[in-house]
Amino acid sequence: MSALPSIEDIRRAAARVAPHAHVTPVLTSRTIDGMAGARVFFKCENLQRGGAFKFRGACNAVLALPDEEARRGVATHSSGNHAAALALAARIRGIPAHIVMPSNAPAVKRAAVEGYGGRVVACAPTLRSREETIAGVLAETGAILVHPYDDAHVIAGQGTAALELASQVEDLDAVVAPVSGGGLISGTAIATSALSRARTVGVEPEAADDAARSLREGKILPSNDPKTIADGLRASLCELTFAVLRERGVEIVTVSEEDTVKAMRLVWERMKILIEPSAAVSVAAVLLRKVQGARIGVILSGGNVDLSALPFA
Amino acid sequence: MSALPSIEDIRRAAARVAPHAHVTPVLTSRTIDGMAGARVFFKCENLQRGGAFKFRGACNAVLALPDEEARRGVATHSSGNHAAALALAARIRGIPAHIVMPSNAPAVKRAAVEGYGGRVVACAPTLRSREETIAGVLAETGAILVHPYDDAHVIAGQGTAALELASQVEDLDAVVAPVSGGGLISGTAIATSALSRARTVGVEPEAADDAARSLREGKILPSNDPKTIADGLRASLCELTFAVLRERGVEIVTVSEEDTVKAMRLVWERMKILIEPSAAVSVAAVLLRKVQGARIGVILSGGNVDLSALPFA
Repeated sequence: MSALPSIEDIRRAAARVAPHAHVTPVLTSRTIDGMAGARVFFKCENLQRGGAFKFRGACNAVLALPDEEARRGVATHSSGNHAAALALAARIRGIPAHIVMPSNAPAVKRAAVEGYGGRVVACAPTLRSREETIAGVLAETGAILVHPYDDAHVIAGQGTAALELASQVEDLDAVVAPVSGGGLISGTAIATSALSRARTVGVEPEAADDAARSLREGKILPSNDPKTIADGLRASLCELTFAVLRERGVEIVTVSEEDTVKAMRLVWERMKILIEPSAAVSVAAVLLRKVQGARIGVILSGGNVDLSALPFA
Repeated sequence: MSALPSIEDIRRAAARVAPHAHVTPVLTSRTIDGMAGARVFFKCENLQRGGAFKFRGACNAVLALPDEEARRGVATHSSGNHAAALALAARIRGIPAHIVMPSNAPAVKRAAVEGYGGRVVACAPTLRSREETIAGVLAETGAILVHPYDDAHVIAGQGTAALELASQVEDLDAVVAPVSGGGLISGTAIATSALSRARTVGVEPEAADDAARSLREGKILPSNDPKTIADGLRASLCELTFAVLRERGVEIVTVSEEDTVKAMRLVWERMKILIEPSAAVSVAAVLLRKVQGARIGVILSGGNVDLSALPFA
């Protein structure tokens, strides 16, 4: 695979993950259409295995490993959903998964990793502690690192959600997804630009707007431990995802914490599906009419929420 | 339409509601399959318009009215989901809806009725107050009563969920749905017995087990103001639904309040969809292995829950 993944890489990923991943449904809500002033098509990756799109990328990366590498096991660092996804993908292949997780990750995400048979190694919630801890794990176990987004196979896997969406809904004007490290938005942009005339729009919390700033300034400007309820959106772009976003002309918009929680509650109440704050940012952007278009696809990225610590109720 | 609705009535209802109702998805969960010891297919009527299967029956009944009756408007009494469904169906036909609701109905259900343009008339949470209040409303407005379950058109409409399920999943051993007044379970039994070899199994809260007692004793033995968290399951069978359940050989099982809340939380956490306690009873029955079969369809009846008053968190 070349450095920047292509639509062919995404098609190969789709074939690889097909026996294991759900084809997730596309849901609509007339109430939300009315509020957004557009027809909105929600691609429900919250209903994906492991509760998030992350299973697509992790599964593709794990299944693409040659046997002699796979048997050494896999390892990663993740704020949560990639962690569970990698543990599940490793279980499917029958190999060990070592997962470095920040100590402030939601309890439900830690429990999910352990439920899939993964080994959790805690670190402090800083970039430095993450990197030191994962380096120690790799040295100790010999496992293969599967980075949550700085990995062409992972990006190609994430792109299978948009590939699937393009086969489910015609004639979209825009496809919207959240931006953290940029794996999902990169895969989405590659698939969407190859298959349709739709624009790809990324959404960030105002408090974690590194992609918006980086694209504006033409260089990577990482966020440092940003404070946002969207616990899946605290990472920053890497060279690979930054390059994809520039090449594909991805637009970025930002939303507030308050609008994110409102959008999350609206989706729970009106659509009867659980989405996590990291998925709600895209809904907020559409409700605030920050995304142009009459027909808008929204990738609901995940639904892993700790029911004991809801931002409402 | 004859007194007991037939599969042909259900097919006519399906044609009538098709332009308005969602074809709801069927979701699966490997975790729940493992716990239940069966493959379980969840028919997601919680994702139906109005958040419950009730829209199917109300829509069929409202659309089946002759013009000269329809223009007088419709009225009903309901603990909640039929109320919202009738208000929505009336709005689609452009006629008024008068809804008698018990004063202890969840706030979210009252708000839903008003959101669809229905007029709410409060009553005390007793059968007598309900009946007196609806009689007053009918006398005052001249509206047509659309009973939540003692109505052949409503039953035929509810049966369209099982009709749809039969086209989505093959070779089921059993189809499971909750029992309150019996509209859903009657429509389910008529469709299921006509289209497949699957048994129909109804589920009640232990505290509201009038259908189980009535079928056992061969006569209707109503529950009187039963105390259960399943606020949609507090009604009792009528002659019409009792007759259908006897004719179609419906089995009834019961589940505890505690198992209902556990099942509800499990579905939220693992399947990422909101279900209300009245839907969770069916899941509890399957998890407790009270339903025989290797392939089981479960009609998740609704997802209307007050997020400010959850039984967990």
